[in-house]
Amino acid sequence: MSGRDQRRAVVLVSGGMDSCVCAALAAREFDPAFLHFDYGQRTAGRERRAFAAIADFYGVERRLVVETGLFRQIGGSALTDASLAVPEEGKDEGVIPITYVPFRNAHLLAAGVSWAEVLGAEVVVIGAVANDSSGYPDCRPEYYQAFNRLLEVGTRDRRVRVETPLLERSKAEIVRLGLELGAPFPLSWSCYQNSDEACGRCDSCRLRLRAFGQAGAQDPIAYATKEKT
Amino acid sequence: MSGRDQRRAVVLVSGGMDSCVCAALAAREFDPAFLHFDYGQRTAGRERRAFAAIADFYGVERRLVVETGLFRQIGGSALTDASLAVPEEGKDEGVIPITYVPFRNAHLLAAGVSWAEVLGAEVVVIGAVANDSSGYPDCRPEYYQAFNRLLEVGTRDRRVRVETPLLERSKAEIVRLGLELGAPFPLSWSCYQNSDEACGRCDSCRLRLRAFGQAGAQDPIAYATKEKT
Repeated sequence: MSGRDQRRAVVLVSGGMDSCVCAALAAREFDPAFLHFDYGQRTAGRERRAFAAIADFYGVERRLVVETGLFRQIGGSALTDASLAVPEEGKDEGVIPITYVPFRNAHLLAAGVSWAEVLGAEVVVIGAVANDSSGYPDCRPEYYQAFNRLLEVGTRDRRVRVETPLLERSKAEIVRLGLELGAPFPLSWSCYQNSDEACGRCDSCRLRLRAFGQAGAQDPIAYATKEKT
Repeated sequence: MSGRDQRRAVVLVSGGMDSCVCAALAAREFDPAFLHFDYGQRTAGRERRAFAAIADFYGVERRLVVETGLFRQIGGSALTDASLAVPEEGKDEGVIPITYVPFRNAHLLAAGVSWAEVLGAEVVVIGAVANDSSGYPDCRPEYYQAFNRLLEVGTRDRRVRVETPLLERSKAEIVRLGLELGAPFPLSWSCYQNSDEACGRCDSCRLRLRAFGQAGAQDPIAYATKEKT
């Protein structure tokens, strides 16, 4: 699936359901290199296993795991600071949740672009979702427009671009797309706080369960509980 | 020098001459927090000592050293790949040197912005120099304009900005400014390849020596040799 005549792309694969579908799309369209970011989040080890399993599934040899201690050093997010609880109460509209990791996606994208420049890849693919989703400021369309402007002026050959194939889709559409493409959802991991059975209660589990429900599908991973969303 | 009523700023301090002058400027204007980035460059340990010495000089308690293995993992730069020689022959106009670290400044700035969001700082200061300098694409004015646009749309409170007080100055002007401000040049380190005596031959040493020469000043650090520039 990764012919030598295809364009190279660096694909950011967290191991969650969105990046799992991104991986499926990219495996079809590009010669993909998979990049994973371990920033000391609660479920880092579990997400890394999901990343490796998805990369194995698509036979991707060119893979890179980047580690940073920055977010644990600075704190400020419930995903990287054990003293802050992960919310289980649903989200308030218009409020940035405490699971927001400050300016995180810029670090992921910068790692993708740096590697793309070395590999000669023209595209960095990220499974950011703007609507029906997290409420994070670095998941909005204008953020990716601004990032691509930065790439036009700030890279060696001015030719690397970020693509966001899921940005305008609903989570239910993403599930349907993944099922059509045969994305390996059983290998993916979305839970913010557990690494054995998904908690079913954090924002990420609730969004995922709702998405599968709206798509009329069964989420194939195991949950401790499944709250109504 | 860091009154509680002053605005907070995160200052990127590599330990080189430009960041030494930036530190001097920021210590006067802001309540500064100093950030250093260890990306596995050849002289990382030496630069980290320079950073600590400059932070001590200005009595800055809020300091952070971020480490990343990414650039060693991906290679592609003479600064992070021991198999690539650091040039000693001067630079070709219009060519990006092999010491360019792919998209590096985005990583530095992203770290600064993440920390600024947690600290409640409104400014990230970087001593990038556009002219008379390195030839790197991430040292150009349009790069910083684009980065600030990214910050307008991609941060929690939309209020962090990057400031580049040295961007349009010549290296000789930066030396003069540093001398006026009493910047601790003896504590700074610029050499790309040595950690005991500066080599005097790499691009960074040559630019620094030329700058001090043009400013009619003596560089206070020790050199193994001083090539004509």
